Amino acid sequence: MDEFSIIDVFFKSVSSNRSGLVKTGIGDDAAITMLPNGYELLVSTDTLVEGVHFLPDWPVKAIAYRALATNVSDIAAMAGRPCWCSLALTLPELDKIWLEEFSAGFCDALKTFNMDLIGGDITRGPLTITITIHGIVPVDKAIKRSGAKVDDAIFVTGALGAGAYGVSQLGRLDYQSKVFDKLFFPAPKHHYADLLQTYATSAIDISDGLSADLSHILKASKVGAILYQDKLPVAEAVMDKVPDSEHTDLALNSGDEYELCFRVRGEKKVNFIAEVENKKLCCYEVGKVTQDIQLLLMNTNHQTKPIVNNSFTHF
Amino acid sequence: MDEFSIIDVFFKSVSSNRSGLVKTGIGDDAAITMLPNGYELLVSTDTLVEGVHFLPDWPVKAIAYRALATNVSDIAAMAGRPCWCSLALTLPELDKIWLEEFSAGFCDALKTFNMDLIGGDITRGPLTITITIHGIVPVDKAIKRSGAKVDDAIFVTGALGAGAYGVSQLGRLDYQSKVFDKLFFPAPKHHYADLLQTYATSAIDISDGLSADLSHILKASKVGAILYQDKLPVAEAVMDKVPDSEHTDLALNSGDEYELCFRVRGEKKVNFIAEVENKKLCCYEVGKVTQDIQLLLMNTNHQTKPIVNNSFTHF
Repeated sequence: MDEFSIIDVFFKSVSSNRSGLVKTGIGDDAAITMLPNGYELLVSTDTLVEGVHFLPDWPVKAIAYRALATNVSDIAAMAGRPCWCSLALTLPELDKIWLEEFSAGFCDALKTFNMDLIGGDITRGPLTITITIHGIVPVDKAIKRSGAKVDDAIFVTGALGAGAYGVSQLGRLDYQSKVFDKLFFPAPKHHYADLLQTYATSAIDISDGLSADLSHILKASKVGAILYQDKLPVAEAVMDKVPDSEHTDLALNSGDEYELCFRVRGEKKVNFIAEVENKKLCCYEVGKVTQDIQLLLMNTNHQTKPIVNNSFTHF
Repeated sequence: MDEFSIIDVFFKSVSSNRSGLVKTGIGDDAAITMLPNGYELLVSTDTLVEGVHFLPDWPVKAIAYRALATNVSDIAAMAGRPCWCSLALTLPELDKIWLEEFSAGFCDALKTFNMDLIGGDITRGPLTITITIHGIVPVDKAIKRSGAKVDDAIFVTGALGAGAYGVSQLGRLDYQSKVFDKLFFPAPKHHYADLLQTYATSAIDISDGLSADLSHILKASKVGAILYQDKLPVAEAVMDKVPDSEHTDLALNSGDEYELCFRVRGEKKVNFIAEVENKKLCCYEVGKVTQDIQLLLMNTNHQTKPIVNNSFTHF
């Protein structure tokens, strides 16, 4: 079975034109896509390596779904709409059952996010998945990491902790357990795009943990921030499983969240909150941007201490 | 040294806006690019795995240059102009000398092809390079694999054989030898874009060998072809190094060529050849498209025999 047969059998059927922007998909030297008038293109790439980003015994459908969902989160963090992607798959061997499950999980994700697979590459080697995702955004409406200003309010789109808690339970619980839902089937916040385009000054997705990712924003925007300890939202699913004393650490450092963290100007906050309620979306105000270039945690007694960044480093 | 420092030190300086289409490059959740009015986007992805697509002892600059050049060839095969790319690099360890040479070779290639690096990912794992390249082409002007019609003349853009000959000399000659130029520093034919847009009915790049790649065209276009044995161009550099009896096989099966193979309608051939000469480009007429769905070789006595496809299969 050569590369072309694998693509025909497992991936061509996955392809379609859900985005309405694909002219020629899988099967030529390059895919051809369009861009509607008044839009710009967003492009992001992520690589997942077996043993580093996922474990060999994880459900294959979850590996595939998660691979696309985490990429969608990058487009969501720019306030864009995900449209299509290419998939580079390096496989140690031709395992038809694995490929069937992988393409089924990938197809589920494509349908969930209304996206198309437009091409890619299949090579032989250690299991690695690289996805390059493309999204669109109206001209000048993308929300970047820079742009946070002093006194902006800091929001997150969901309660935190379930990602890290899932990771901590790997090898302990059966993979069918709901504990792994956030880890295996992340729900990126691409439906916040309109809201972000109207209200956000800067945004990022929480894949390395709130404190680590917020630090990128602060660095890019050359500002600092205070987070309110009692306002940090902890996911209900983990609240009674983790001692109270660890809740703050969990909210600050849990990776694999794929929630968004973004800033809103003080004067726009009232309208923003009204619109969030109106759209039945969910946002938590967790802090504010400050002049001092450091990240602080403030307790209920208004005492502050620096937040130590515990994020993961590859090298 | 974390991923962000590696990007800062080795790849940010490589980035620029040579294409004139990059609005936000490396450093955010996604890059932002534009598309000029009247153009479509071409997207292609290739993965190179150490030990499969390149050997650990190859010059690092060549590994990097070749990685981008072979991707450019895919855009060239669609008659597009290469513009920007993302680079996903999986590295077994942090080797600063390797990274310096890699980024230097990659930068050389970006400059040669007037392209930008807009983002990517750096992860830890077995050495793998995945590039997603983006090109542009005027609306409806991309040349696809399908589209070949009976009696079209078949052209290639250069003499063949140096790719395979280079591969055959790996481990025998010093890597400084000119024998490896075609293999290490491929020269994709992106400057044939205007010519192809005007004259070609279908096109492909010769990366798996003329007979294998032409077979893809024939399959996509549902036609056959005859190649003229005495017209198959053999690269001068290898002519006296390989016995005459092997020249035909070499021209038919040499991979790693990155020449283009394309079709031109019979009635447009005279104008086409005049324009090739006018532009001081190089094209060889090597055969014609036929009704019968098979690929034949015709000798000087007008005897034909089927061409057996010896191309490489990954699995």
